[in-house]
Amino acid sequence: MYKALLATAVAATLTSGAAIAQVKPEILVKQRQAVMTLQGKYFGPMAGMAQGKIPFNKDVVQRNAGYLDNLSRMAWDGFVDSTKDVKSAALPAVYTDSAKFKEAASRLENEANKLYQVSRSGDEAAIKAQIGAVGKSCGGCHESFRAKQ
Amino acid sequence: MYKALLATAVAATLTSGAAIAQVKPEILVKQRQAVMTLQGKYFGPMAGMAQGKIPFNKDVVQRNAGYLDNLSRMAWDGFVDSTKDVKSAALPAVYTDSAKFKEAASRLENEANKLYQVSRSGDEAAIKAQIGAVGKSCGGCHESFRAKQ
Repeated sequence: MYKALLATAVAATLTSGAAIAQVKPEILVKQRQAVMTLQGKYFGPMAGMAQGKIPFNKDVVQRNAGYLDNLSRMAWDGFVDSTKDVKSAALPAVYTDSAKFKEAASRLENEANKLYQVSRSGDEAAIKAQIGAVGKSCGGCHESFRAKQ
Repeated sequence: MYKALLATAVAATLTSGAAIAQVKPEILVKQRQAVMTLQGKYFGPMAGMAQGKIPFNKDVVQRNAGYLDNLSRMAWDGFVDSTKDVKSAALPAVYTDSAKFKEAASRLENEANKLYQVSRSGDEAAIKAQIGAVGKSCGGCHESFRAKQ
């Protein structure tokens, strides 16, 4: 299993671009899509709570916000030029307007980290407001950089 | 985007089995496979370092170990009975021998958490030994509960 992982992912998370380039573009796309899937898994219930559609549960929010704080930093090294031609919902602007894309990515990281912090307070109103801010940062990026679903 | 997430993931992470059951089995499988994909992304380079195949990098290990500590807890609520008939590499034993499966899952969580702790120490030999222990806990579970790849 050690070896199987090495074959596909050995250099995926090194910080140098050269190392990232060694990972197959299809794998990079699969990995970044996996992050989006899990962000949905953990953000979805919090969005439901903020909108009053499901009961507020402080413990679930604290756990999910902690996971989301981590996940919000995992996708971005997969949006590299080598992946441009792999079929996905990413719009060309990801690669042509990378400064704006990076800004949108940082916004999610910052808002998710704030949610993690505020989730520790147990202040329901503040938590719900910050869940809204995270949702806006998701939507803001999708608006410009993801094909309409 | 709020609404799109709600449609697919609203109850995925609530702790009650009843809530989990509301999420489509195919989504649960997609989510747990996403966790495995990302565990590979972040464990792969650490395995390479432990085996001397790529240079040891303390900063990468600390980051990856932190991510893996989180990821190691994300997959298990997706291995529920409703997913039994969805095509995946999970063997029937996941559902028929759930006590042993849970034990194997806990082993990964514990070893990944230990790796996170030891990664803070900067002790290269201890870190490499613990990377090996994490690898064994991955392999141990795959041996009994995943179809041969």
